[in-house]
Formats: sequence, C-alpha cells, structure tokens
Amino acid sequence: MVLSGIWRKNENQRDPLPPNLVVSHDKSVSPQSVQELCASVGWSRREPELIVKALQNSLAVVSIWSNDEMIGFARATGDMVFNATIWDMVVRPDFQRLGVGRLVMHELLKELDEYQIPLVTLYADPGTDGFYKRFGFLCDPSGVRGMFREKQEY
Amino acid sequence: MVLSGIWRKNENQRDPLPPNLVVSHDKSVSPQSVQELCASVGWSRREPELIVKALQNSLAVVSIWSNDEMIGFARATGDMVFNATIWDMVVRPDFQRLGVGRLVMHELLKELDEYQIPLVTLYADPGTDGFYKRFGFLCDPSGVRGMFREKQEY
Repeated sequence: MVLSGIWRKNENQRDPLPPNLVVSHDKSVSPQSVQELCASVGWSRREPELIVKALQNSLAVVSIWSNDEMIGFARATGDMVFNATIWDMVVRPDFQRLGVGRLVMHELLKELDEYQIPLVTLYADPGTDGFYKRFGFLCDPSGVRGMFREKQEY
Repeated sequence: MVLSGIWRKNENQRDPLPPNLVVSHDKSVSPQSVQELCASVGWSRREPELIVKALQNSLAVVSIWSNDEMIGFARATGDMVFNATIWDMVVRPDFQRLGVGRLVMHELLKELDEYQIPLVTLYADPGTDGFYKRFGFLCDPSGVRGMFREKQEY
C-alpha cells in the first residue's frame, strides 16, 4: 500500500511523512531487512532463521519501506481472542521524528482491532510512554506491574 | 501426571500440597472448567468458544486438577522463539496458599524453558510481585514499563 496525503492531514502531524512510503502487513518479510533495521538502533543480532519463525508465530507484523529499505517495524504476539502484546517497535534513526513510528502503531493497532482484541499491551522503554499514551495506552493501570524473567544462556 | 512427594520435599514448602493432584499441559481442556475456575475468583465471564480458541492459540497451557475439578490454571502466549507472556494465573480460593500456584508456575516455566525462550514476561496484580520474584521475575527492569490499552466494547 502506498500512502496518500490523507493520513498526514487526519493525523495533524507537525512534520509530513517522508514521501512514497510503502506499508506491509506481510509476515514473510526478509529477515535480513529486520536484522539490519534492528542493528541500526543497536539491538543485539538475531539469527535469520529464528526471525522467520518468530514472525510466522506472530499475530501481526507491520513493516514500513522506503525505496525498498525497511525503515520501520513492529509486531504483536497473542491469542487472537483476548489479548495481544506489541514487541520490537523500531524506526531507523535517520527516519525518526518524521511520523514513521506513529504510522507503524496505527497500522498494527488497526490490524489488531480487526480481530476485536480487547486488551493490547506492551513494554515501554524509559521515556517512550508519552508516545504510546497517544494511542490510548496507560502505564500500570490499577497498579498492575510489568515483570520480566530473562535467561541469557539460550 | 500424578505428583509424587518429591516435588514437595524439593520445594521446601511450608504446607504440603493437597494429595493426588493431577497436572495437565493439554490445550484442549474443557472451557467450562476454565470458566468455573475464573468465576471462582470473580473474573468476568468469557464465552466457551472464545476460551477454546484462545487456548489453542496459546503457546503453553497448564491446569491442575483435584478430583476431576480444575483448581489451578495459567497459560502463555508468545512467538515460541524470543518471548512469551504469562496470562490468567488463577488458583481456586479454597486451594490457595497450599503451593498450587507455585506448582502452576513451575510447570508452565518448565514447558517454556523446553522451547528455550529467553524472555518471559507477565503483568502482576498489586501485591503479587513477591510471588513471581521467587521465579526470577523482576519489576520494570531498566525502567521498562508495562502499558495497557483496553477496549470494553468488544
């Protein structure tokens, strides 16, 4: 899908989106493109075959492309009924603050809303909660806390 | 699987587990049993056909049975590669504080560890984080915050 100007007008963005962006909801995007995009923001390297498997097992995958390069990405896991969780929201540094992140979230939430999933959650890095609040996300509602268990050895 | 006394000894529990508990990792458990268990702790009613779909789309489902009644439950969603999220951890009130919740978590994490999933997350209700800390979970590590968007109309 190539974007029209309507998105820009409706969303009242301060800066216009870069021209000729392409939005994809395809889970079969190139794992190398995901890898390069994640590397551009300093995330640790993930094996292409694991990326392919994770994307296939995701509920929704959104990528934004400019001149055949992936510049924005996010995905969601979930049960397709009661809940979904957003992961790996990333925008290439040279395309940040241009509305690409908002476009990624808009497209991802649109797809999750088609499934009528009542609860969408995410884990926000420090300083990013203001961005997600624009989309109706609340921090720790009713005192519910996000908790993590990480194992480095895998 | 019927539990032996070994679990009790190894876990150093103050109270012994109720006798003759049965552990199931079957995603095809009766949705009515899940419904009744959730009702016993006051959770809002979910349609059986939606429960069936959500269980099938979950990565792992654990239920604990006593005399053919479900007394403990939890499940996890995820991509089977990089992350999993635990949902709907519940123990029937008359079986709480007997080690059933620990058994549910032990069984669920054991299954997720078989997939070698490096990141397991959950959202802890107020006052329950101490329970999850025993399993290695941390609140808001590095300032990462859990965020929620709920839509009531679905």
